[in-house]
Amino acid sequence: MEFVFSENTKDLKPSAIREIFKSLTDPSVISFAAGNPSPQSFPVQYFRRFTDDVLKTNADAALQYGITEGFTPLRDDVLKRNRRIFGIGEEYDTAIITSGGQQGIDLTAKVICSRGDTVICEEPTFIGALNAFRAHGLNTVGVPMHGDSIDPDELENIIKKAERPKLLYLIPTFQNPTGRTMPLNVRKRCLEIAEKYGLIILEDNPYGELRFEGDDVPTVKSMDKDGRVVYCSSFSKILSSGMRVGYVIAHNDIATKIAVCKQVNDVHTNLLFQMVCHKFLTEFDLDAHVKHIRELYRRKSALMLKCLDEISGERIEYTRPQGGLFIWANLPGCKDHDGFVKKLVSKKLAVVPGSTFSCDVDHPAQGFRLNYSTPSDEQIIKGADILKETINESY
Amino acid sequence: MEFVFSENTKDLKPSAIREIFKSLTDPSVISFAAGNPSPQSFPVQYFRRFTDDVLKTNADAALQYGITEGFTPLRDDVLKRNRRIFGIGEEYDTAIITSGGQQGIDLTAKVICSRGDTVICEEPTFIGALNAFRAHGLNTVGVPMHGDSIDPDELENIIKKAERPKLLYLIPTFQNPTGRTMPLNVRKRCLEIAEKYGLIILEDNPYGELRFEGDDVPTVKSMDKDGRVVYCSSFSKILSSGMRVGYVIAHNDIATKIAVCKQVNDVHTNLLFQMVCHKFLTEFDLDAHVKHIRELYRRKSALMLKCLDEISGERIEYTRPQGGLFIWANLPGCKDHDGFVKKLVSKKLAVVPGSTFSCDVDHPAQGFRLNYSTPSDEQIIKGADILKETINESY
Repeated sequence: MEFVFSENTKDLKPSAIREIFKSLTDPSVISFAAGNPSPQSFPVQYFRRFTDDVLKTNADAALQYGITEGFTPLRDDVLKRNRRIFGIGEEYDTAIITSGGQQGIDLTAKVICSRGDTVICEEPTFIGALNAFRAHGLNTVGVPMHGDSIDPDELENIIKKAERPKLLYLIPTFQNPTGRTMPLNVRKRCLEIAEKYGLIILEDNPYGELRFEGDDVPTVKSMDKDGRVVYCSSFSKILSSGMRVGYVIAHNDIATKIAVCKQVNDVHTNLLFQMVCHKFLTEFDLDAHVKHIRELYRRKSALMLKCLDEISGERIEYTRPQGGLFIWANLPGCKDHDGFVKKLVSKKLAVVPGSTFSCDVDHPAQGFRLNYSTPSDEQIIKGADILKETINESY
Repeated sequence: MEFVFSENTKDLKPSAIREIFKSLTDPSVISFAAGNPSPQSFPVQYFRRFTDDVLKTNADAALQYGITEGFTPLRDDVLKRNRRIFGIGEEYDTAIITSGGQQGIDLTAKVICSRGDTVICEEPTFIGALNAFRAHGLNTVGVPMHGDSIDPDELENIIKKAERPKLLYLIPTFQNPTGRTMPLNVRKRCLEIAEKYGLIILEDNPYGELRFEGDDVPTVKSMDKDGRVVYCSSFSKILSSGMRVGYVIAHNDIATKIAVCKQVNDVHTNLLFQMVCHKFLTEFDLDAHVKHIRELYRRKSALMLKCLDEISGERIEYTRPQGGLFIWANLPGCKDHDGFVKKLVSKKLAVVPGSTFSCDVDHPAQGFRLNYSTPSDEQIIKGADILKETINESY
C-alpha cells in the first residue's frame, strides 16, 4: 500500500552523514567523515569495573524502570561539574538526563517551538539539530559564519526578517562542522539580541571540554541571568557515545516541560549507564581522563593540519580549531564542493559535504568537514595525500 | 522570566502514574500502582556475564556510535523470534530497535499523524501512549470497552464521526490497564475497519509473551497483508525495563521514516544493551526464562484474585487476566473512583485511578488499575485488606 506520512516528516531524508557512516563498511575507504570520538578515548577497563560493580550491588534498581528526570545522584554530579568547569547553574536551573545530547536538542525544540516557527542557526551547523528542527515542522534560517563566528548585526537583521523566530541554536565552542569558537563579545551580543527579540537560546556544547589550545571562553549559559539559555551536552565525547547519556541544564520551568516530553518519548535514559556515569564522576579521575583525550586530539589535529599545510595555500583554506573534533575546509577555486566531495569518495576518501550542514539546502555551504579524532595517523597522512592529489587534478 | 511553550506541549501534564511512582518513597505505602516487572524476573547473573563478555571482546564497538536502525544481529533476532512466536513478518517488514516500546509508539505517531489528526484508542488505555499522542497535538478519541473488548460497530461509528482519523491504537493482549484480551473476531474486524477507513493500526504488545492461562490469540500484525499494522514491543517485561531496549516491526517504508525520526531523536539505542540482548537471544534459554516469569505472575495474579474474591461480589467487579501485569477493578456503587483512590492512598495503598487512562479527561473511566507483578505476597494480602476495609467504610 501507499503510505501517507505526517506533514512534519513527509519530506525528511536520512542524514547524509549517517548514510555515509553506513556505507563505510568498505575497509579500504579512509574516513574523515565521522563525528566519532577516538576509541582510544574509551576508558574500557573502568567501564567493565563500574558496570560489574553496579550489577553486583544494585542490579534490581539498575534493571528496573527509573525516574524520567534521571538518576538523582548523576543529576547532582552534572550540575556540580558544569558549575565548576563552565560556571553554569543558577538557583532556578536543574539538570535532566537525556539519551545523548541529541535528545536534549530534539525535546527543547519540541517544547519551545510550534510548527511554522523559525529556528535561527549558525550556517553551516550540526545536521542532527537541523533535522530535529525540520522533523517538528520548523523553519531553519542560517546566519553565515565569517571568520571566527557569525556577525551579530547580521543575526539581528535576520531575526527581524524571520517568520516567528523562537529559538537561536548555537554551538559556540569548537563548532560542528567548522571547529570555530565564538568570541566572548559575540556571545554577549547573542544573549542581548535573544533578550531583545524574546528568543530562547539553545547552547549545544558537546565538545566544550576538549580544548587543547588557548583559553576557555565563558559559555553563553554562564552569562544568562534570566533562564533564557537551555544548555545541552553529553558524555559522548569524554566517556562513550554508544551508551547514549547526555543532559540538559535549564530553568526549572523548561526542564519540567522537557521531562514531560521525555516521559512519552523514552520514559527514561538507560539506568545502568546513568549509574555507571555516576561512578565515573565520583570514583574516577575524569579530569585526568579528559586531559588525556585533549592530548590525543591535539596531536591528531596537529598532524592533520601539518598535512593540509603541505597543500598550496592558494588551493585550500581551512580552520585551525583549538579543540573539538573538526576542521572545516574549502577550495577557493571550487564552485561545487559537493561534486568535489563525490570525487574524493570515488578515490576512497570520505568527508562530509557542506550541503549537509546547510539551513537552506538550495544554497549549500561551500566547503567540507574533516574529522581527525577517528582516523589513525597513517590514515590521516594517506587521506591528506588523496585530498592533495584530487585538488591537483581538479584545479 | 515567563516562558511560552509550544502549542503541542503547553497543556501537557506529567503522567499521574509516574508522579505516583515518584511519591512512593514512603516505604510504608503498599503499591499496586506500578507497571513494573518483578525484580525476580531479571536474569541478573546473565546480565553480569553478557555485559562483561561484550566489554571484554567488543568494547570499541559497544561504546562507539552505532547505526540508528539498531544492531543488525539483534534486528534479525527480533524478526526471527516474533515470526516463531507471533507469526509476524512479511517480506516487506523490517525491525527497528527503539529505546523501549514507548519510543516506538511516539515515533509511529510522529511519522503517521499531523497536528489535529485523531488517534482512536481503546478506552481506557495506556497513559504513556495517550500522552505521546497529545504531545504531537493529536486528538485522542476512545472506544469504550465492554466485556472483553471494544465493539467493532461502535468503533466504526466513532471513526466515521472523528476528525481526520489516522491511527488506531490497540493493546489487544493483556491490555493496559484492564488486563483484557481482544477476541480473534474483534481483531479481524478492527483490521477490516482500518482498511475500509484508511487507518494505520499501531499494535502495542509489550505483555504478549506473559500468558499464564488460556491459548494465544493471533496478533493483529500476523493477519495484516498490506503493511497497515505497525507492531511495537520490547524486552522490558521479559529481561529488563531499565535498559530501554524495544523494537518496532513495520513495513519498510514506515520503518525507514521511523528511523529518520529516531536519528534526530536519540541517534540510536544504547549499543551495549543491544549487544547484551543479542546474547540473551542466542546464548540463553529465553523461552525457559519467560516460562519462569509466567509461573511467577500466574501465582501472583491468583493470589491477588483470591484476595479480591473475598470481598463481597456486589461491592467490587474486576477482570481475570490470562496474562500480563494488571487487573482492572471498579465499584458498582461508586460514582467517583478518583475520589475513592485518594482515600486508598491516604490509607497507604497506591493504585492508579481510571482518569489516568482516559482519552477524555472530563469523562474519566470509572475504575482503577491493580498491579500484581511488583508487590510481594505479603503486600498483596495486606493491600487487599486495605482495599476491603476502605470499601466497607465507604459503601
